[in-house]
Amino acid sequence: MTIHIESLTFDTIIGILDFERITPQSVIVDMVLDYVYENNNYINYADLILLIEKQMNEKKYELLETAIEELRENIILKYPQITKLNLKITKPNIINNAKVALSSSWSNS
Amino acid sequence: MTIHIESLTFDTIIGILDFERITPQSVIVDMVLDYVYENNNYINYADLILLIEKQMNEKKYELLETAIEELRENIILKYPQITKLNLKITKPNIINNAKVALSSSWSNS
Amino acid sequence: MTIHIESLTFDTIIGILDFERITPQSVIVDMVLDYVYENNNYINYADLILLIEKQMNEKKYELLETAIEELRENIILKYPQITKLNLKITKPNIINNAKVALSSSWSNS
Amino acid sequence: MTIHIESLTFDTIIGILDFERITPQSVIVDMVLDYVYENNNYINYADLILLIEKQMNEKKYELLETAIEELRENIILKYPQITKLNLKITKPNIINNAKVALSSSWSNS
Repeated sequence: MTIHIESLTFDTIIGILDFERITPQSVIVDMVLDYVYENNNYINYADLILLIEKQMNEKKYELLETAIEELRENIILKYPQITKLNLKITKPNIINNAKVALSSSWSNS
Repeated sequence: MTIHIESLTFDTIIGILDFERITPQSVIVDMVLDYVYENNNYINYADLILLIEKQMNEKKYELLETAIEELRENIILKYPQITKLNLKITKPNIINNAKVALSSSWSNS
Repeated sequence: MTIHIESLTFDTIIGILDFERITPQSVIVDMVLDYVYENNNYINYADLILLIEKQMNEKKYELLETAIEELRENIILKYPQITKLNLKITKPNIINNAKVALSSSWSNS
Repeated sequence: MTIHIESLTFDTIIGILDFERITPQSVIVDMVLDYVYENNNYINYADLILLIEKQMNEKKYELLETAIEELRENIILKYPQITKLNLKITKPNIINNAKVALSSSWSNS
């Protein structure tokens, strides 16, 4: 089974520029994760979303790179049934004529 | 040949939360299926759509996982010429700042 | 190099239902093709689009399956430098709560 | 890590038709690049965007093919940590009922 969290949008402190440390900006998180579904042992999508928002709001990351690495680490730790994970964070408003994003894929094989 | 059913949208009872058992919510079904096309023996997309809507409305699934597994089973049984199937069900309104979905792929090889 | 023709939209006669033989409906053609680019010998995207619209308007196909097979045949014949082709035709309005499409991939290897 | 520059939109001189040499038209650049991320040595997305816009505005390319090849060459030269690059340029307005684009993928393996 594959869970998709699409266009999870919220405001948070992220980035290395001076104004980015002060003013929250919009981020969009997209996640695709494969997991072993057995004995009705499903993954609650609401919990996943809570984890992502909480961690990013608390950590106020400077680099998208760090945000993605630490989110992945926590999600895999909490859900050992995950076999594959793709995580993408978009800053939709930081550049006025483009959307920029960072993503990373992980697989346990 | 590959058939695509995209953004099939309708209201149905789905989910495990109390209010989800009472109030129909919007779901979006996306399906991609490969099949062997021979002797003009095509698959009627209207029949496929009917099958999906009918089964979900009758079964009122609690888990997206079960909905996907049972839909796949029925579709493959009815159309043995299918060689590959990807089925995705999205709940666009259950989380206010994200779309959540579940998908699964099947191949007869 | 890869050429993308995206969301090529026009009205044409297509389908097997009675009203589909009389009233033109909207179709959306998407095409991705890989080709060998050498000596500035590029493929003109305007010619490709003309070929697709002309053939579909003249042939008034009953099945999307036939439309895709015959378009592919003609395009490959005209442009032998093509190595890979994906062709998709969508009927956006034939079902009121979904978009339905047919696609096919071809590769010369 | 993978950087995504999505829907980078600006006006520039591009194309071989007479009016395309005189009037700037809208182009959309999409780029996906994989790179080795070590020791916080990240790639600045703002620099990448500047490079693309500057080069296209200065070179006023006739062919999308040439634009893509020369952009790729420069980007790879400037960022040797890149291992994979997909570059796509779309002309959204040159055909009135379609979007046309050219893309190319490169990998250092």
